[in-house]
Amino acid sequence: MLGLMQDRQLLISSLIDYAAEYHGATEIVSRTVEGPIHRYDYAAARRRSMRLANVLRDLGIGPGDRIGTLAWNGYRHFELYYAVSGSGAILHTINPRLFPDQITYIANHAEDRWLFVDLTFVELLEGIADSLDSVEGIVVMTDEAHMPETALANVHCYETLIAGAADGFDWPEFDENTASSLCYTSGTTGNPKGVLYSHRSTVLHSYAACLRDVVGLGADDCVMPVVPMFHANSWGIAYAAPMSGAKLVLPGARMDGESVHQLMYDEGVTVSAGVPTVWLMLLQYLRDNGKDLPDFKRCVIGGSAAPRSMIEAFETEYDTTVLHAWGMTEMSPLGTVGMLTPALDALPYAEQLDYKEKQGRGIYGVEMKITDDDGNELPRDGEAFGHLMVRGPWIAQSYFKGEGGAILDGDGWFDTGDVATLDDKGFMHITDRAKDVIKSGGEWISSIDLENLAVGHPGVAEAAVIGVVHPKWDERPLLVIVRAPGASVEGPELLAFMAGKIAKWWMPDDVVFVDEIPHTATGKIQKVALREMFKDHRLPTVDAAE
Amino acid sequence: MLGLMQDRQLLISSLIDYAAEYHGATEIVSRTVEGPIHRYDYAAARRRSMRLANVLRDLGIGPGDRIGTLAWNGYRHFELYYAVSGSGAILHTINPRLFPDQITYIANHAEDRWLFVDLTFVELLEGIADSLDSVEGIVVMTDEAHMPETALANVHCYETLIAGAADGFDWPEFDENTASSLCYTSGTTGNPKGVLYSHRSTVLHSYAACLRDVVGLGADDCVMPVVPMFHANSWGIAYAAPMSGAKLVLPGARMDGESVHQLMYDEGVTVSAGVPTVWLMLLQYLRDNGKDLPDFKRCVIGGSAAPRSMIEAFETEYDTTVLHAWGMTEMSPLGTVGMLTPALDALPYAEQLDYKEKQGRGIYGVEMKITDDDGNELPRDGEAFGHLMVRGPWIAQSYFKGEGGAILDGDGWFDTGDVATLDDKGFMHITDRAKDVIKSGGEWISSIDLENLAVGHPGVAEAAVIGVVHPKWDERPLLVIVRAPGASVEGPELLAFMAGKIAKWWMPDDVVFVDEIPHTATGKIQKVALREMFKDHRLPTVDAAE
Repeated sequence: MLGLMQDRQLLISSLIDYAAEYHGATEIVSRTVEGPIHRYDYAAARRRSMRLANVLRDLGIGPGDRIGTLAWNGYRHFELYYAVSGSGAILHTINPRLFPDQITYIANHAEDRWLFVDLTFVELLEGIADSLDSVEGIVVMTDEAHMPETALANVHCYETLIAGAADGFDWPEFDENTASSLCYTSGTTGNPKGVLYSHRSTVLHSYAACLRDVVGLGADDCVMPVVPMFHANSWGIAYAAPMSGAKLVLPGARMDGESVHQLMYDEGVTVSAGVPTVWLMLLQYLRDNGKDLPDFKRCVIGGSAAPRSMIEAFETEYDTTVLHAWGMTEMSPLGTVGMLTPALDALPYAEQLDYKEKQGRGIYGVEMKITDDDGNELPRDGEAFGHLMVRGPWIAQSYFKGEGGAILDGDGWFDTGDVATLDDKGFMHITDRAKDVIKSGGEWISSIDLENLAVGHPGVAEAAVIGVVHPKWDERPLLVIVRAPGASVEGPELLAFMAGKIAKWWMPDDVVFVDEIPHTATGKIQKVALREMFKDHRLPTVDAAE
Repeated sequence: MLGLMQDRQLLISSLIDYAAEYHGATEIVSRTVEGPIHRYDYAAARRRSMRLANVLRDLGIGPGDRIGTLAWNGYRHFELYYAVSGSGAILHTINPRLFPDQITYIANHAEDRWLFVDLTFVELLEGIADSLDSVEGIVVMTDEAHMPETALANVHCYETLIAGAADGFDWPEFDENTASSLCYTSGTTGNPKGVLYSHRSTVLHSYAACLRDVVGLGADDCVMPVVPMFHANSWGIAYAAPMSGAKLVLPGARMDGESVHQLMYDEGVTVSAGVPTVWLMLLQYLRDNGKDLPDFKRCVIGGSAAPRSMIEAFETEYDTTVLHAWGMTEMSPLGTVGMLTPALDALPYAEQLDYKEKQGRGIYGVEMKITDDDGNELPRDGEAFGHLMVRGPWIAQSYFKGEGGAILDGDGWFDTGDVATLDDKGFMHITDRAKDVIKSGGEWISSIDLENLAVGHPGVAEAAVIGVVHPKWDERPLLVIVRAPGASVEGPELLAFMAGKIAKWWMPDDVVFVDEIPHTATGKIQKVALREMFKDHRLPTVDAAE
């Protein structure tokens, strides 16, 4: 028997409608690419989004068509979020930091019909325009006065199009499972793959983001997503802000400590979200210049692990609560957020930090479990670590155009590719990437844990651990070390330093010293390259085993 | 084009699963009907809910079957919420305060197969058992030691059934639009009508309730629903508490000031919700005994209008923020909640109170508009008042078994039967019931406004205003007065008192004095009876018009 409730669909257009009707005078403040600070409010944002929807219709954009963007966080990008998805088309946010040939691949794979670009990226686009197969025209997100000289074909000015469009637009109503937006994963191996969000997944994700122990936005907040709007919808903030009526600050292109501080201070930002790199620059600036951020209450840190020292600095020096978070493009992206429960909040601060260093607690709407290689669920005891599997209404079921094939198991779980522990307090802690874990005699050894331990030795500049073939144990850990400048530490000393701090069978079988460890463009250790370098390395323990 | 996100369904079972897994040690505290305080936690609540689901299966309860409850707010009722809906059956919460023949009507109309009753209601049930056509058995929600002597047929003991049931239960997965629960509206005219909620509507409503500017629960809250679990799911708190991990306090049957205060004080209740009557008793008790509630942060008041003096008392004397709320059984029930925006919060307190007296601001997920008799939308200016129309995924589309016929207009709007204003700050203010508004020359006069004004005169004990037939204006207001004891106020004095405080054309055309005004069982003025009493009343203004 079905319930007898209205079948109103969850549509993105209702978010901007709500904000315009119930928080119409609340500000959206943007640092523009052109330079000045731009201000307007949710009511004006809706009016212009509706005009932009009329522009799209006049350009012949229909339901399901992809519109690409190459843009920073700004009010015009925000308008595209609502005009494109709200009118039934699909907003494809492209990461402009990718290599030009990756951008070309992505735009062609998505079959983007039009591109909307910030001034910053016109030159980039000129370099690849000839390779873009599906793009019919380009809109530069600026006004007539700032329009660049360009050889690009069929180029239009955003403000001129808006000025020429009709007022008002009746958002269409359709199935909430309709695709709303598209974002490609950076993809450490193979081509980038597209995650195709729906209106339903986006609205549900926004509700979850607004839960008090998640991002917890309210109308008295001022939220600034430092995380780009081309990274999984700025972690959902571009949708959660209108849902909650929070003031929205969009910081544009300038991510240096001084620029971020100035905007946060001037606008009274209470909540922000971004990767550790940005916060490191901000903390450095605050310290060097004796500045503070008296309104800054909650800082969401994700993208990669937040160091304990960074968490401690925000909380003890600046009275800003850190919410350590984890997610994936495939997860819209929120998976866990590290708000402490009252019981944990009562612990001594050092013990609180032990929890805050983990990636966060489960959110209602995201199911999590850890499994062994055979799919058996492992205990939530904070010790056992296994494949982190997730399931929920804002998690991908497959990639755009079926790339990568089936990605869910028979029960609908998505394998995150991470290896993690779950503890009895509900915290998840990532211990490794699944492909980097060392499998020794059927048991797993975390490469990250060993690396973190080794870099604690003053003679070590950088450490990497990889698995090397072993006839008895399948794999055993090899510790790869870059010495600190002037240091002369040797293997036995390092292993003695590590002894007693880990299980005996976790101890690396060998230590090698190199001048440099290979990194990816985003600064991560290239384990694949390391494994290739040492694929013929013979561990000293092999002789004994043979 | 559809998105490519997982089609995980929104099911009520996932709420108790989440609470058990991520807030397993958080307490649920109940004042039992038997007397003592009972404590356990979300993990134990899930274990027992699963056992109860096995009991239901063993009793032959299948998908869509209705299980009736006659119960106070307590942990066994909470278990029924999850065991019944979670296993695919429908929880029918019956209001035990209704007249026995109404209860009989409702149980028969719902075709309840089993009834679960608190000890309190065994006697009531004995009086109507013979008239219950569909009920196959009764479970008394107590343990063996407290089982009553009763002539009821096929009676079982809750704890004995639980003790005999198997551990663990795999919650079934099904369409989120499946019916989950059933609640009848009290119905001022005609028979009660059933609202059939779905899993989807319930989960979405819970997300909305958890928004920070709605009820805004978090894991550091302790929430006590004073509003009964048989009134629209205790305004959603029985679902929102597990979603947020808040500690839950269930107060049982005792609603007097001392009992409510003691439980709130002892358990550290931070949030509560209920009707004005309960809060009046609590405030009286606090004042008379010099008590306070230091943990009590937010008080949701709904069901009927919260008086300005009550709002002021909570906020200024006890430092508890009042959230004036409005909803309906047909709305799951939340429609509006009166959290002030930062701009309003900066006003002088007396002006804040002007907004807090209104019924609250719009919530994301509930669309509202006001219309005239022809369905034209009226401006949101705080002045125009019209039919309050609502639309959204947790609002009814029809009543159970189609009672009352079609209840939505062509665009899917539900007419609340209330007359209200909407202002430019997003606040809704109920000015009348649609059937009580006086229609004078095509314009509307609010009976409630006139009544509130008249009772301000010291000579007036109670006032009612009804429309009386007028040849020129269709209707004109008649003021019906019960004098205060010993008072001798006359009509001209009263009208002079009201003059200047309302528009001239709102002034009643006549005043009559009566010894008593008829009331319903729940204390509301019976306007229908009054209109019948005065249907032949000839207004003095009629002569002039004829």
